[in-house]
Amino acid sequence: MTSEPYLLTPGPLTTSLRTRQAMLHDWGSWDSDFNNITGRIRERLLQISSGGGTHECVPLQGSGTFSVEAAIGTLVPRNGHVLVPQNGAYCQRIARICRVLGRKLTTLDYPENAQVAAGDIERALEADASISHVAFVHCETSTGILNPLHEVAQVVARCGRGLIVDAMSSFGALEIDARRTPFDAVVAASGKCLEGPPGMGFVIVRRAVLERCEGASHSLAMDLYDQWVYMQKTTQWRYTPPTHVVAAFDAAIAQYLEEGGLTARHARYARNCATLIEGMARLGLRSFLPAAIQAPIIVTFHAPDTPRYTFKSFYDAVKARGYILYPGKLTTVETFRVGCMGQLGERGIAGAVEAVGQVLAEMRAAA
Amino acid sequence: MTSEPYLLTPGPLTTSLRTRQAMLHDWGSWDSDFNNITGRIRERLLQISSGGGTHECVPLQGSGTFSVEAAIGTLVPRNGHVLVPQNGAYCQRIARICRVLGRKLTTLDYPENAQVAAGDIERALEADASISHVAFVHCETSTGILNPLHEVAQVVARCGRGLIVDAMSSFGALEIDARRTPFDAVVAASGKCLEGPPGMGFVIVRRAVLERCEGASHSLAMDLYDQWVYMQKTTQWRYTPPTHVVAAFDAAIAQYLEEGGLTARHARYARNCATLIEGMARLGLRSFLPAAIQAPIIVTFHAPDTPRYTFKSFYDAVKARGYILYPGKLTTVETFRVGCMGQLGERGIAGAVEAVGQVLAEMRAAA
Repeated sequence: MTSEPYLLTPGPLTTSLRTRQAMLHDWGSWDSDFNNITGRIRERLLQISSGGGTHECVPLQGSGTFSVEAAIGTLVPRNGHVLVPQNGAYCQRIARICRVLGRKLTTLDYPENAQVAAGDIERALEADASISHVAFVHCETSTGILNPLHEVAQVVARCGRGLIVDAMSSFGALEIDARRTPFDAVVAASGKCLEGPPGMGFVIVRRAVLERCEGASHSLAMDLYDQWVYMQKTTQWRYTPPTHVVAAFDAAIAQYLEEGGLTARHARYARNCATLIEGMARLGLRSFLPAAIQAPIIVTFHAPDTPRYTFKSFYDAVKARGYILYPGKLTTVETFRVGCMGQLGERGIAGAVEAVGQVLAEMRAAA
Repeated sequence: MTSEPYLLTPGPLTTSLRTRQAMLHDWGSWDSDFNNITGRIRERLLQISSGGGTHECVPLQGSGTFSVEAAIGTLVPRNGHVLVPQNGAYCQRIARICRVLGRKLTTLDYPENAQVAAGDIERALEADASISHVAFVHCETSTGILNPLHEVAQVVARCGRGLIVDAMSSFGALEIDARRTPFDAVVAASGKCLEGPPGMGFVIVRRAVLERCEGASHSLAMDLYDQWVYMQKTTQWRYTPPTHVVAAFDAAIAQYLEEGGLTARHARYARNCATLIEGMARLGLRSFLPAAIQAPIIVTFHAPDTPRYTFKSFYDAVKARGYILYPGKLTTVETFRVGCMGQLGERGIAGAVEAVGQVLAEMRAAA
């Protein structure tokens, strides 16, 4: 396995061998051995978010976006009105979901290098009583920017509206504590900071809210209420679960807890992020965001200032040295991204920086 | 791995070790190595259904039901009208999807032990010109009944309506030839007769129909048009694919072709089915359906006529002998089901029959 490239990507990422080996078994989706795994995952995800007692964990088949759409479709009534503060591609995706689902939408637009501001949201909610929900992204994977979840949640709660959080690339590495930070729904997925394989998402949803959502969903397959009720009654998934992915996600969560949970995971990613930014700076590569608003998940770098640079050739050369980079997602600035997540092996991020350095040196020499 | 129970279930089923070992690798969802796998799967699935030239293969994250809902949501216009011939739980699920999506619905109801009749569909279509689509199930996994796909397709085409086929438990084992059997969409999934792990579905859809479906879907994540256009443009999945499942499905399809494709797969399942029904008959267990309408996929048996029988105790005892059975899904008759699919090892179905025989003997002796 050592010859495989490491994924410096924000999920799918490099999982541990132990996690992947959990996929060597087949499971009956009706069998109690498998349903015990599902139950354990749901319980542990609730614990990680301190949602026990107030919230439920509802897993869902598909990518994280399926769970985001499911949360909006199930929780926002058809006559609801969603405020979406936007500072990146995943916020824009939430807005697009609202449009497709026919939910009334108002956006609050920010540049891609600026945090969402809780004060702006407060003013928007005070100005328009018809806004029923705020939906936003905790950590924008498109840039790596950290949005102020806790402050936003306080404002939304004070104004008596519902909050839906896309915590795809933060859940498990950045604190989300349901006892301190009020929310109706937090959405994440198996293949991100908890370091499982991709293939399922989950929603941590306030029980008192979910109980009122019968028949609200625009979709059968993505009806979180129906999924929850069926799972409570039978312990089974409503439709065929991705059994191997579920078992591997369970193994990944076990390793997460053994590593020391959120504190340890955050510390590891923060170290990776610091090592990455320092190392790249030594190579003359500037990060796009100021450190104060950079989440330790994924870092956007300005493209190297060398005439020979194309992302494709850079990517291929770094890949040949064992590391898979991620393209930039900004429309106005030429960038690339490097993830700080996953099992990066003995040489870790330093190995990646070294590979980038070698490729840059070659590009500059050839220029 | 030999101590694991074999799954006598209609997916998830027992996959080969080679298929599972394909999940030991992590893949970047943006990387060309991975996207080559996606491309190969799409091409081979089209070949299996002889849809090259006329149809497209659009894969989708999630269970098969997600793909069924996606096909209905994308292909049936909001003012469309769907006729659903019903003789089992999966037909009923299609009807439920139509209701949730707000598509006008007419059902044609049959008993669970009777095939759908093409003549009935023809009369229904002639009687109501507003019916735009027929949606039905090729092989009803709830009983194991085979519905006459080819005859139904001829009738629907002659009447100039669209046909959407849930071929979940038939695709790859029962012939579906787009050149002979006209259809707008055939839906199936990775974890059924092609013997991959569960976690993705796919839709074989007529290109001329799909091209007209921009903006039609009720859902963003399940918009087959959008998924197709993005995939054609980028070779990538629109949202994070279940990378490990995709890679294992690719390996499973390779083994399917090596085994001899549909002819060989059908022959193996047909042998399994015959061995199963004969063996169970020797044990005094009667199958629910007459042989003429039994698909070689999954067989429903009447529960043993012994006072000690409960499905739970029967299941547990057979499981202890290494085989996982499947519960019945009929409301009026006490039954259980046994799948004929998957990699059943050296002893194959005969081993399963022997285990059932031992358990029955114990139950009868104790009665």
